[in-house]
Amino acid sequence: MNDAPAGTDAYGRLASRFARIATVREAAAVLDWDASTMMPAGGGAARGEQLAVLAGIAHAMLTEPQVADDLAAAEASPPAGAWEAENLRLMRHAHTRATALPADLVEALARASSDCEKIWRGARAASDFARVRGALAGLLRLVRESAAALGPALGLSPYDALMDDNQRGVTAAQAGAIFTAYEAFLRENLAEIEARQARRPAPVSPRGPFPIAAQEALAWKLAQRLGLEPEHTRLDRSVHPFCGGTHTDVRITSRYNEEEAATAMMSVLHETGHALYERGLPPAWARQPVGQAAGNAVHESQSLIMEMQACRSDAFLGYLGREMHAAFGGDAAPYEKANLARLLRRVERGHIRVDADEVTYPAHVILRFRLEQALLAGDLQVADLPGAWAEQTRALLGNEPPDGRRGCLQDIHWYSGAFGYFPSYSLGAMAAAQLMAAARRSLPDLDAALAEGDVSQLLAWLRREVHARASLFGMDALMQAATGKPLDPADFLAHLRTRYL
Amino acid sequence: MNDAPAGTDAYGRLASRFARIATVREAAAVLDWDASTMMPAGGGAARGEQLAVLAGIAHAMLTEPQVADDLAAAEASPPAGAWEAENLRLMRHAHTRATALPADLVEALARASSDCEKIWRGARAASDFARVRGALAGLLRLVRESAAALGPALGLSPYDALMDDNQRGVTAAQAGAIFTAYEAFLRENLAEIEARQARRPAPVSPRGPFPIAAQEALAWKLAQRLGLEPEHTRLDRSVHPFCGGTHTDVRITSRYNEEEAATAMMSVLHETGHALYERGLPPAWARQPVGQAAGNAVHESQSLIMEMQACRSDAFLGYLGREMHAAFGGDAAPYEKANLARLLRRVERGHIRVDADEVTYPAHVILRFRLEQALLAGDLQVADLPGAWAEQTRALLGNEPPDGRRGCLQDIHWYSGAFGYFPSYSLGAMAAAQLMAAARRSLPDLDAALAEGDVSQLLAWLRREVHARASLFGMDALMQAATGKPLDPADFLAHLRTRYL
Repeated sequence: MNDAPAGTDAYGRLASRFARIATVREAAAVLDWDASTMMPAGGGAARGEQLAVLAGIAHAMLTEPQVADDLAAAEASPPAGAWEAENLRLMRHAHTRATALPADLVEALARASSDCEKIWRGARAASDFARVRGALAGLLRLVRESAAALGPALGLSPYDALMDDNQRGVTAAQAGAIFTAYEAFLRENLAEIEARQARRPAPVSPRGPFPIAAQEALAWKLAQRLGLEPEHTRLDRSVHPFCGGTHTDVRITSRYNEEEAATAMMSVLHETGHALYERGLPPAWARQPVGQAAGNAVHESQSLIMEMQACRSDAFLGYLGREMHAAFGGDAAPYEKANLARLLRRVERGHIRVDADEVTYPAHVILRFRLEQALLAGDLQVADLPGAWAEQTRALLGNEPPDGRRGCLQDIHWYSGAFGYFPSYSLGAMAAAQLMAAARRSLPDLDAALAEGDVSQLLAWLRREVHARASLFGMDALMQAATGKPLDPADFLAHLRTRYL
Repeated sequence: MNDAPAGTDAYGRLASRFARIATVREAAAVLDWDASTMMPAGGGAARGEQLAVLAGIAHAMLTEPQVADDLAAAEASPPAGAWEAENLRLMRHAHTRATALPADLVEALARASSDCEKIWRGARAASDFARVRGALAGLLRLVRESAAALGPALGLSPYDALMDDNQRGVTAAQAGAIFTAYEAFLRENLAEIEARQARRPAPVSPRGPFPIAAQEALAWKLAQRLGLEPEHTRLDRSVHPFCGGTHTDVRITSRYNEEEAATAMMSVLHETGHALYERGLPPAWARQPVGQAAGNAVHESQSLIMEMQACRSDAFLGYLGREMHAAFGGDAAPYEKANLARLLRRVERGHIRVDADEVTYPAHVILRFRLEQALLAGDLQVADLPGAWAEQTRALLGNEPPDGRRGCLQDIHWYSGAFGYFPSYSLGAMAAAQLMAAARRSLPDLDAALAEGDVSQLLAWLRREVHARASLFGMDALMQAATGKPLDPADFLAHLRTRYL
């Protein structure tokens, strides 16, 4: 299957099995990408079945009785190497998660997610929550059933068991404390940030139209400038930008709007950060649990350190402005660094999470973090979600969504069964700031390089401190190794103060 | 999984299992398409593993001990319906094929095919057979091992066992007799066809360049004119045109050349014929053995009845010429029906099979049919293949390939493990002529419709007589049902006499 030992000892058998499982998941990842980028609509029903069957097969491979025997035998005489030992622990963890769920529940979840997601697309387009309410309630019941089975198996609360699947070892208590502190920061500083912003000149938007082919060409050039290799990556279009595919064949996507180009550029730089992480994972650990990315929060830290920390820095914006002006022509003034900074770092209390600036973004996450815990616990009924959403938004940002499309219908996550995912975004933002602060301490010339669009120093640092470690550590241990302390929002708050206050 | 009964009786269990297997194969089909159209080169090694693992999984699902028990039980009290009864027979047939091969041989074949194919690409580009000789010899050994295992299980010779996988029930003896007759036809008529052609005015080629985007747009328009539905199909580019994907998500490809557009148009019309067959298979039998296309020869009959019979008819060429002139502009004369007919029905003793006209095409197939039998039997060594190729070409067409690229390196088939496939092309051409003759008997207005580019009458006839029957019949029985007689080359020879003599 790969370089993993295929020998007859228990650990070797497990390594071979996990490589096979990972290979099935790679197949599913390509099919997922295809569904969002290439597939004609009429293929949707069959694709849902294909993904459900592959998920069921991977689950069955992980839960065959032989695995429990091999795990016990391998644990009795563990492999000598440090990464192999951790790999074995992660195999046990994956096995515990998988055996906690019956195969029919796994397939039912995959199918219900795919169905609910389809209904959600129509509901969102029509801004009609009632249309998807039933499907979401049904899906939530299955998610709740999963969480209830996973929790005791992992020794976690049901919600923590879902969070664990997104970022191993991070709990609602830890995230909750960080978010409470952030809420206080916002209450204390948001008005002041807005007031300062109001005193500065309003940003000028570059004049379009920006032909989509030219945007895509520049985006691809920027992605390669950051370090993506064309022989291992693609850039395509999809309704929502994402990074998918496999380690040696990473697929990023973006969407384009003829009227405005900067958003697409930043979105591609974001996905490029994700893709560079996948490309930096150690090939020697490929298809083993320890060789995978460390979790969604760490993944998000890698996209955000590129997008928010490096590429929205004053230094990089100078380079970006020159490239954009060269690509799109027209008046040069809007592309000047200071104007681009005002444009691309504008703070606004908007309704849409994915459009949010880095200051208000965590408020969107906090809202979802609280609501999804309530939904899962049964304290909030699906029918009451729009009302609760409006109430929480008012409490956090002082406004309410004008409609469902800009409210609880905006994100795909819950409608595709992803609960416990949202905290990763903001924990990732905090980790990104913490990693950037550490990188800057050892890279004194970083800004000079960023001014030329050159992130290679930063990337080399990330490759060594984050990518090469893959899943060898959990979040806190990884941050400890890379930055000298566990995950700590202080660097993020310091970054916001420096940039906005 | 699908509409198949998922009940607890043996046949119901089998239907569920075969639907799952078909779903895994659908996943593989999309990955195959992706590898030829979208995948960056660096993803090739991982993709080979993904396909090998999926092939191994499908094989394992088919060979689990439970299947033998269920087959025996279902055969003891067979399902009542006619299609279910035939479905059960096809399940038994698939099981016999699969259990004849050990799982490790199946995966080794998939991996060796993928490796050899990769080496072949380089060898063909360099026109250097020596480079791929070793890989082909290794792959051939595995193919021979498979054929030796399959033959006794199916009660067939080893080569017939491979042919059976391409077109159930057709043997080398049947194909050999047809090909011997065709060789006689060629010996008798080819020189006369060439002499007549030489007395007619030489065709004039339309003047390019033909922008590729315009070619692709027209090709897609023509494909839709023939009946392809955009919500269930895509047209993309690949090095070699093919039809892939799944029944509800059919993916056709073509390649384009700025200097010449007609070849790409005909190639898309050919693949459209394949795609229309996939789209016409009965949804109620989806993912069941009986619901699949009847075999490669029948598949080829569906592409060729569109490309060669319908779209190269005088009537359709009038429509095609108008469309091409409208798309590409320039002088109208080369697009006139009579000139297009001379251009697109030109007979030439070329070296490349896929570029061959319909008269000499079977000679290319006969050559390969004979050589692959000799290779499989061990009567011909891989090292001696180029010499044998030259000798056979001289005997059949009176010339020799100037180099390997135009000789035994030209086709992917053997290098990807496909032996016993080639006869399907010419058996398909013969079936296409036979079907067209029958269709014309019941569609007196066909030419008037074709003159407007309208194949809907023909398609409706094919849907009823061929597509709707899927794998309910073998080749001869299908031809009997549709045309009143088993496969018979007489209609093809009559077609060639009418068109060329």
